[in-house]
Order: sequence, then structure tokens, then C-alpha cells
Amino acid sequence: MSGKMKAVIKHHRGVGAKLLMVDIPEIKEDEVLVKVKATSICGTDVHIYTWDEWSQSRVNPPYVFGHEFSGEVVESGYKVTNIQKGDQVSAETHIVCGKCPQCLTGQSHICKNTKIIGVDTNGCFAEYIALPAVNLWRNPTEMPYEVASIQEPMGNAVHTVLAGEVAGKSVAIIGCGPIGLMAVGVAKAAGASQVIALDINQYRLGLAQKMGATSIVNTKDQDPIKTVAKITDENGVDVVCEMSGHPAAINQGFKIVTNGGRVAILSLPVKPVEIDVTNDIVFKGVTVQGITGRKMFETWQQVSRLLKSGQVDVSPIITHHFPLEDFEKGFDLMLQGKCGKVVLYP
Amino acid sequence: MSGKMKAVIKHHRGVGAKLLMVDIPEIKEDEVLVKVKATSICGTDVHIYTWDEWSQSRVNPPYVFGHEFSGEVVESGYKVTNIQKGDQVSAETHIVCGKCPQCLTGQSHICKNTKIIGVDTNGCFAEYIALPAVNLWRNPTEMPYEVASIQEPMGNAVHTVLAGEVAGKSVAIIGCGPIGLMAVGVAKAAGASQVIALDINQYRLGLAQKMGATSIVNTKDQDPIKTVAKITDENGVDVVCEMSGHPAAINQGFKIVTNGGRVAILSLPVKPVEIDVTNDIVFKGVTVQGITGRKMFETWQQVSRLLKSGQVDVSPIITHHFPLEDFEKGFDLMLQGKCGKVVLYP
Amino acid sequence: MSGKMKAVIKHHRGVGAKLLMVDIPEIKEDEVLVKVKATSICGTDVHIYTWDEWSQSRVNPPYVFGHEFSGEVVESGYKVTNIQKGDQVSAETHIVCGKCPQCLTGQSHICKNTKIIGVDTNGCFAEYIALPAVNLWRNPTEMPYEVASIQEPMGNAVHTVLAGEVAGKSVAIIGCGPIGLMAVGVAKAAGASQVIALDINQYRLGLAQKMGATSIVNTKDQDPIKTVAKITDENGVDVVCEMSGHPAAINQGFKIVTNGGRVAILSLPVKPVEIDVTNDIVFKGVTVQGITGRKMFETWQQVSRLLKSGQVDVSPIITHHFPLEDFEKGFDLMLQGKCGKVVLYP
Amino acid sequence: MSGKMKAVIKHHRGVGAKLLMVDIPEIKEDEVLVKVKATSICGTDVHIYTWDEWSQSRVNPPYVFGHEFSGEVVESGYKVTNIQKGDQVSAETHIVCGKCPQCLTGQSHICKNTKIIGVDTNGCFAEYIALPAVNLWRNPTEMPYEVASIQEPMGNAVHTVLAGEVAGKSVAIIGCGPIGLMAVGVAKAAGASQVIALDINQYRLGLAQKMGATSIVNTKDQDPIKTVAKITDENGVDVVCEMSGHPAAINQGFKIVTNGGRVAILSLPVKPVEIDVTNDIVFKGVTVQGITGRKMFETWQQVSRLLKSGQVDVSPIITHHFPLEDFEKGFDLMLQGKCGKVVLYP
Repeated sequence: MSGKMKAVIKHHRGVGAKLLMVDIPEIKEDEVLVKVKATSICGTDVHIYTWDEWSQSRVNPPYVFGHEFSGEVVESGYKVTNIQKGDQVSAETHIVCGKCPQCLTGQSHICKNTKIIGVDTNGCFAEYIALPAVNLWRNPTEMPYEVASIQEPMGNAVHTVLAGEVAGKSVAIIGCGPIGLMAVGVAKAAGASQVIALDINQYRLGLAQKMGATSIVNTKDQDPIKTVAKITDENGVDVVCEMSGHPAAINQGFKIVTNGGRVAILSLPVKPVEIDVTNDIVFKGVTVQGITGRKMFETWQQVSRLLKSGQVDVSPIITHHFPLEDFEKGFDLMLQGKCGKVVLYP
Repeated sequence: MSGKMKAVIKHHRGVGAKLLMVDIPEIKEDEVLVKVKATSICGTDVHIYTWDEWSQSRVNPPYVFGHEFSGEVVESGYKVTNIQKGDQVSAETHIVCGKCPQCLTGQSHICKNTKIIGVDTNGCFAEYIALPAVNLWRNPTEMPYEVASIQEPMGNAVHTVLAGEVAGKSVAIIGCGPIGLMAVGVAKAAGASQVIALDINQYRLGLAQKMGATSIVNTKDQDPIKTVAKITDENGVDVVCEMSGHPAAINQGFKIVTNGGRVAILSLPVKPVEIDVTNDIVFKGVTVQGITGRKMFETWQQVSRLLKSGQVDVSPIITHHFPLEDFEKGFDLMLQGKCGKVVLYP
Repeated sequence: MSGKMKAVIKHHRGVGAKLLMVDIPEIKEDEVLVKVKATSICGTDVHIYTWDEWSQSRVNPPYVFGHEFSGEVVESGYKVTNIQKGDQVSAETHIVCGKCPQCLTGQSHICKNTKIIGVDTNGCFAEYIALPAVNLWRNPTEMPYEVASIQEPMGNAVHTVLAGEVAGKSVAIIGCGPIGLMAVGVAKAAGASQVIALDINQYRLGLAQKMGATSIVNTKDQDPIKTVAKITDENGVDVVCEMSGHPAAINQGFKIVTNGGRVAILSLPVKPVEIDVTNDIVFKGVTVQGITGRKMFETWQQVSRLLKSGQVDVSPIITHHFPLEDFEKGFDLMLQGKCGKVVLYP
Repeated sequence: MSGKMKAVIKHHRGVGAKLLMVDIPEIKEDEVLVKVKATSICGTDVHIYTWDEWSQSRVNPPYVFGHEFSGEVVESGYKVTNIQKGDQVSAETHIVCGKCPQCLTGQSHICKNTKIIGVDTNGCFAEYIALPAVNLWRNPTEMPYEVASIQEPMGNAVHTVLAGEVAGKSVAIIGCGPIGLMAVGVAKAAGASQVIALDINQYRLGLAQKMGATSIVNTKDQDPIKTVAKITDENGVDVVCEMSGHPAAINQGFKIVTNGGRVAILSLPVKPVEIDVTNDIVFKGVTVQGITGRKMFETWQQVSRLLKSGQVDVSPIITHHFPLEDFEKGFDLMLQGKCGKVVLYP
């Protein structure tokens, strides 16, 4: 397919982005071209938009950014066998090497040579995106585009929560951004008997409640350690999902987890964190799990099924919808923390 | 405490049982006396009542049978430290040795020297029961007695369903007696995306639906293999919980499980079963789990929390309530399969 | 590369095979051509050679059979990136679809659309073999060709033994054909405190002893159940690896495993097996694992490292070496059970 | 049994200890009296001996310290059923409550109410020790007393190394004190393909080599990160066992572990440690395990069997033997780091 398309371009090494007309990308023999139906804004996109330190060291403008989307396959390379024209799809955003020990042993989500769509390659804030067919995940035809679009971040939530047992356990979610909110829903769906959501943003705690949190704790007003102790009969929680990235919150996570508990960390604190290894990890017999990406494609299968079955309803989290042209409104909301998930429609 | 109490006695080596007045049991230093508030009838009790082959070889009348109950501690031996007078309790029915390799390595539910309350010792179809304090499980004060009473069989359901991952998976429950029905509720609560209930009894399939089954299959009318294939996009289910004990159903279970799936067997087929090991286990890479009892006390913790949190609501299963005196009505219903769980009140 | 090569051809639908000159195979863009340095005979090859029932229903003569080998890459398609000309290699023999739920969730060894090299495609009893580059496993340059050749069946042994914990456990290996013998070595290397080898062939039990078995039991002369009970202080073994395929031996395996133990079955009994599910699986809380193929490529990594580190020494098992021309001598030995592993050199 | 016995007494709140004659302890109904045959010095004993900050806050002189031992049961309370007079025994040193959620769910090694023998109660640097019968572990009669004595610290090593898969994996042991040295032997016995020992003490690295280390790295002279990268084909190790307690070494452990690897921490750093959570845990998908105590009694079973089978030979580690009277010589050697394990004989 040739012609021009609308795309949100990270156009320069500075703040902001621009909507421009660019060439529709060409596909290689093992790639497909997807017409983007919905695309959602990730925290990573905000970093790129505001041109923070990490972005400066990683991305190379000008290019199309964005990596969460759903759409329809409109063209496929002659070597592609897993996907057909007309399929409804989303995509795993990690492009992996397939050759390193991690890829060869079922752990490609931690491939050492990972490239990320929309970060290291052109992304999906556009009418079309070209990408490797092996990265695609087929969606049920009845799944709404905006729901299908947020499967990638929901995959992070699912990967974190379901990295250990949850049914009949007490779970604390620290940090109620969109992924934390999805984690609340996943923990609840997976049979957690208590889901305690912690944040300093009351709006987001309200969303946590809608997602099924059994308790919400505003850590600006309440001591999280005392509060959680009280809620859990002085036992602490069995599982902590850390999604805030704040050193103090991380340490609170270690204090509220019970002996033998699990602390799954998805967040990316910007600096090294001081941890009381002896008292908070060793003596308590705690297991700490670093979580990144989504297992290919176990996590995608779980996400798809939890959504399709209705076990998790993400609609309370998708708070804003804009045409692609209004991307700046979306970024503003994200910067103010006054939203759940923002979806753009090209 | 001394005096007399009402008790349902397996009085002779033959069919039936009798309500008699007997001595309130005395407790030893490490035992407690519990005033029974509710007691439910198990399939095992029906075997003893009808005096089947197994009962003839195992139990020694006259004695009090029954093992599922809830009640209040009214007396405790001087060495007892884990439980107090006034506590609301139920009990693990396996009395284990604490000395065999299984007991010493966290697997006391498969202790080789297990004695079972109400089978090998006096049970709970009575106003009072004396039993070792270490077997007791403390109930939340707000838990209704009839619900607390069925935690023991619900433990079997929880042990079976949660012996592997369930969230985002498809689960088939074969056999919808009370434990199968509870398994439906547990699978649903633990995030199964599909819960397929199979039985030949339409009344029980109706209860399965109330417990949250996403599909019910009456195997008298429908070919279970074809039906399940259709429901699962020709993939089969990820997990089979076998609770029927019928050789044909067990083999159907092996046919409907997908490659790499899990078949958890709680049922007790009366004769050896012919299994196509090569095609149904080896080539499919299937894992078969023999499940018995409840993990002490992980399973009890899970049961208690799933009930307390409301994640599992067992009220549709508790279909009949009688005073202890009317125990024969309860056994009749059980024999006819026209009930879920029958609860007796001493 | 064009020209002719020697190859052992299954030439007709009947007993036997022939050494013939055939075309060197051509490779596709994602395939490589390997010069075969050593190739070993598998039990499956014997089935094809003797033209048993299974072969008659599965293979289509004329074609080159054989699937265990090591060699050097002499040509590679233009799309191949994981392997280079000159690499020393062996190959996973399962050619998988990459699209089914199993392949997409890290379980491609139980892909429902598996094709097997040397069974469904041309194999390696030849001077050259062409095969998909993704199936190759790179060998350390210092690994002897005959050792590298038997990594594929050793992968079966490793997959079976290491499908659960072994260190400090007692392990019984039932059936001491070449894979059973390798399993003895693997169990020993992985820290099993007891490795009990059972067979009816004294020659093979002698090899088991060389591989490190702590006890050998000739089940023609000794009651395996009583003998194992005695060796294990009446506890039974923690792990059974079933590699015999005999119904009686399988049932003995279930009798000698301790409560809570693991029975891993790699063998392929020719008919359904009667199993005492109630007493041998359910009441004992046993886990039964169907094992097939090798995990791609976790198992290959384990095999390669156990060999390279010297933790497992397979040299006692490689009992016979012949030029490819003498393949009939090798098949005769295999049929008589008077050998460990037979290696052919093209 | 009444009378006097020799005992090493922590006699005052200051440096040192004294050999004194004290009363032989009396036993309760569920306790036993053990005649101590061998007792070994632990790092914890050295802390108490030198009266460091931790000791000052924890122990209450005067009392008998010491907790690693082997001996013979000479008297047992009337309620004791698991152990008999004449049994050869060692003991788990954690006295647990049996009532907390951890104890009730198979995790008594992290009981919140743990008391430690020789720390919170009278210990074994004496001719006799009285202790709860449930804490005893029966030893094979043929096990030498000095070997039986060090099973408790070997349990720490086993618990750490075997907290995940080891066979066919590369393992780094950071810190080669006695437990680190035992961990080297355990990793090797459990099938690790590479066992890399790191320390700054060349004497102990020499012992590591005797225990089977495939590489030793003196981190005073060699950059551990570059050296391990080289040894592991630039992949890093699969498993790190951290037994040094030094912040720099802990961080090196996180750098040398491969993506998806496991870092098991048994050491007790004296202050909080700065950890690069984002790069060293999250992006790498690393699992961190806090390890304390020994699983009751899985770990004891593993230890006993690894020793009895000869899979682990601890004799190179037991470097010094003294009569109890010469305990000061033992403490001097420990303080200088010029020993493996020091055993005292009362």
C-alpha cells in the first residue's frame, strides 16, 4: 500500500510532538501492515513527549512513537503464515532476537537484545503501522478497539499479579496508575480475598474502588504500615505489587508484606533504592520478583481470556477518548494524573 | 463436662443408623470439647449408612459417625494453647502421626498413618465432639454455622482446583456432586475464563449454573468430547477436575484436556481404570494429580478467606436443613441425588 | 551443494532398509545443510526397520530415516541468522508449527502439528541432511561427535528426570535401555541420594551400575516392590522414571513410589494400561507426568552443560561404532538388546 | 538425670566466655536430654563471644550458648513419642510457635515467634542439653559425630542452593565461610555445570576448590564482573548465592546474574543496602529470595541424605577439632578466618 498517512511524530530533540503527514510504511516479507483503530498513551510515551533524561539517551527523532494499539491487518508479507488480511490484532511491543539464551529457553521477554516498538522503531500513533508478523496477537472480533488497545499494559499487570498464587490471598497494589488499576482488577478476578490499593491520588483511588479494591489507602493521610496491619489482622499482606517507583513506597511494601510473602516489582525507580535486606528480605523469607514485559505469549493468552470472559472489566479505567489530532489533550491529562487510560483514534 | 447427649450412632454391621442418648465424651489434656452447631452429610457417611463393601472393611460399630461440622469450644485440655473456650471452630478430619516422612516434610495430608474422624474415631453427628486441639480451625464469628460446616468438603474442592494455575484458563469439572459444585465456584472465583460443568444429573447441572459455570454439559444427551472441543475452539480445556469416579468419565477427561494440561483427580473409582497412557498422558504431556484431603492448613486458610471475602458463595449448594433427629430424611435425599448439601442441627 | 551421497533408505513397505546413492538435498532460504559426522540408532528407527504396526501407519517409503546426529554446517540459506557455516551442530527433531496455543505459550515440544525428522521428513542416516535452521543446536567444538549425536535421546532422559526435584531424593529408573541408562547418570549428577535401576536384562543392569546406580534390581529374580521397600527403609522412592512401557512394570512403579511422590512416564505402552487410580494415585497424592520430546531449548541447554561439565559421562553407554555401510549390524544388536547406544559414521 | 556438667557459659555482658560446672538441665514432659558428642562453632556464636551490638540487644547472660551439635538421647519426657533413648540426634535450632499463619501453612522456618536455641535458650556448648523433642532430627548411626554436628549450618547452605533449579546451571557462591563452602559442595552435588566461588580470602578459596568449585575468583585481585562474564561466555550466572553480607559484593551479585536468574540471599548485611532495582532486578527479570533457617524438615531430610549418600563430602571443611575446654582456641581461629569449621568435643 502506498500513499500518505497522519502520524504523531516526535519531531525534534525537545519537548512535544507534531501531527504530520508521512509515507505509509512499507512491509518486508515477514511483516504485516496494520490499520490502527485505537491507540492508547503509555507513561513511556509521556517520558518521550516531555523529553526527559531517559528519552534523551534512548530515542532518535524524528520518528513515530506510540506502542499500544489495536487494528486490522490490511497487508501481509509473502512469508507470513500466522496472520491473515482482515484479522483484528494488537501487538507485543518487544521485538526479540530469538538467538540469545533467554530467547532459547522460553524467556524472550527478557531477551538481552530487545528492541521496543515506538521507542527503537516507528510506532503506532499513526493511521498505519508495519511490524513483524510474529509480534501480533489476534483479537476476538467482538472485542472493542479501545479495550483491545490496552491489552499491552494490562499484560504488565497480569504478568505482575499472576507471577505467583493469588487465590485466597491478600494483595496490596502500591501505585494506582493505569497498570496498578488493572492489577487491582486482575487480583480480584484471580480470587484475592483482599485487594488493598495504595496511592496519594484520591481520584485514582476512586478508580481502584471501581475496579474492585476491598480497601483503599491514601498514603498522604494514613500510615500505610499501620493501616495495612489493621486490615490484615496484624499479619500483613501475602503479595505486594509495586507499581509506584517511589523509594519510600517500595520500602513500605517490604514492611507490609508478611513473612514468606511475595513482592513483585514492575515499577522503575529512577535511582538505586536503599533496602533493609536483612530485616525485610532475609529474616522474613520474602521473594522479590523483577517483572518486565509480558511472557510471549502466555501473558497475552491470559489477558485476552480475562477480558473476553468478563472476569476483568477495564471500562472504568478507559476514561478519555480523543481523535488522534487531539493527542496534546491526552498528554496534558496524563501529566496532570487526572485520567485513567487515554485512547486516541486515528 | 459430664452428662448425656443425642448422637446418631452407626449401631450395627448393617444398613442404617439410630439416634440414641450417649455419654458426652471426655477430653484428654491436648483435646477440646466442641458443642456442635451444624453438621453436614458427606458421601462417605452415606457409604457407612448403606453399609457398603468399603464400610464393612473399615468401620467398627457401634460408634458416632459424621465428620463435617462447625461449633463452639466449651472445654479445653490443660495443654491446649492454640484454641480457647468460646472459639467458633471447624476441624480437619485427618488425625496424623507427625512422625512419618510425609508429616515431617509438610505433607501431613498424605500421612501414612492417618486416622479419620467419624470413620476411625467417634464423629460429629451428635451434640458434642471431643477431638485433638491441633485439628481445629478457628472460624470468623460472623460465618453462618451451616457455611462453616461445609468447609471440610470445600477444602477438597479448593485443594483440587488450586493445585495448579487457574486464572485465565479453561476448567472442566466432571461430576457435580456437592464437591464438584463447590469446585465450580472456586474455579470461577480463581479467575477461570471458562468453567464447564459435566454431569448426567440435570438438577445438579442447574446448581452448577448457579455456582457460575459458563457451560453445562449433560453427558447423557451430549457427546462431551465434541461439545467441549466446540466450546474451546477445538483446543480442549487446560484443567480437568475429576470428581465423578466413573471410568468412562475419567477417560473423557483425558480426551478433553489439551496438550500440556492438568488432570486433578479427587474421585475414588471403585476398580482399576484402563487409561491410554501413551496417547492421553505421554504424547499430550499431561500432568495427573492425585488429590486427597486438605493441605494442613494452607487449604483451610484459602477456604476460609474465599468464603469470608464473598469470592465464593456456597449458599446455592446448601439445599436442605433438618434437625439432627431427622437425619434419615437427609440420607434419603443424598441417596436420590436430589440435593446439594444437607445440614443437620443437633 | 549438488552431487550424490550415501544414505540408508527405508526403500519399501516391509522389513529392512538399503544403502543407496541419492541426491544431496537442496536447502531452502531458512534451512541449512549439515555434513553428518555421527548418527546413532534410536528405538524408533528399529520400529521402522522392522516395519511394525506403528511404522506401517506413519511412514511413507522410500525415504531416508534416522534422526539422532551430530555434524558440521556446510551451507546455509540466506535468511539464516542463528547458525553459520562451520558450526558444529545437532538438531531438535520436532519440527513445530509456531502457531498453536502450545507453541505460543512456551510448550512447543507438545505442538499439536509436530512433524518429526526422519519419520515425517528425510533424516540423517546419510552423508548430508537439510533441515530448518531453527531446529539446530550448536555444540562445543571439543565435544566428540558420537557424544554430540546422542544428545537428542539424552534430552528425553533429562526432560524426564529433571521434570521435578531430584537432589537428596530417591529415584527409581524402570527400564534400562539407552535412555533409562542416561537417566541413571542424570539422576546421579543431579544429586539423587539413591538411584535404583530396574530391568530384566542383566547386561543393561551392569551398564546401569557403570552409570552410577546405587542399587540394581533384576525384576526377573527379585520382587521389585519388596526389594525397593527394603532399600528405602520401607518408605518407597520419591521419584519413578518409567521407561519400560510394560504394564506390569508401570503398576510396580505406582506401588514403589512414596506418598506424594512423582511418576514421570516417558515410555509408550502399546495398549491402554489398567491403573489403580484410587489407591495408587489419589490416596497417595501422587503426581504423574507425561513426558515427550525435549523442551525447546531448555532441555538442550541442560544436556549440553551436563555433558560439557563432565557431570554426566555417557561413554559407558556408547558401546558400538560402525561405518554407515554396516548399519545392519547395528540394527541386529539393537534387536538383541546386546548393546547400549550404536553409533554409525557416514 | 541430676548432677553437674561442664558448660561454656556466656557469663557476663562483655567479651568472652567461661568454662564452668553447672547443673545438668531438667527436662519437661515433651522434652529430651541429649548427651552432646560434638558441637561446632557458628558465626553467631562468635558474635556473642565478642559481644557485638546485635548480641547486646538480644542475649541475656549468664547462659549456655552454642546451637550446632550431635549427640545421643539419654532421657525423654513421658509425652515424647518421636524419639527414643539411645537415638543419635541433632536438632533444628528454631523453636516455633505452631500457631501463627506461617506455622499453620508449612512455613514454620519463618514463624514470627521463633526462639533460637543457644540464643534465646540454653544451648549445647555443654555436656548435656535439654530441648523439645519435636526439634530433634534422628541421625544414621554410622554418621560421624563431627559431620552430624554441622548439619544445621549445612541446612542453611542446602536451603539456599536448592531454593530453585540447579542441575545444568551455572552457580556463583559469594562468600566462602563455612556455609558458603558447603554451598559449593551442594551446588556441585546437585548438578551445577559451573560453580564459581568468590571471596577475598585465598585460604578459603582453596577450600572451595577442594569442595568442587570449577572456578575461584579472589575479588581482591580480579574484577568479579569481568571475570564471571568471561567464564560464562558473557552470559552471567543463572544462580547467585549471596553469603558475604558485604554491600559491594551483593551488588556484584546482581551484576553477574543473567536475565531471569535467581539471587538467593542468606547473608545478613548490617545496614540497608543500595540496590539498582530498575536495572538489576526489574529489567533483568531477576528473582531475589530471602533465605533463613531450614525448612522443617524437608531441608534436614535433604542434608541427611546428601551426606549419607556421599554426594556431599564435608570433611575438607571440618578443619579443626578441640576438646570443649579449648573453646577459646576455636574462637581465635574463627576470628582470624583461618579455619573452616571448628568442632568441640565435651
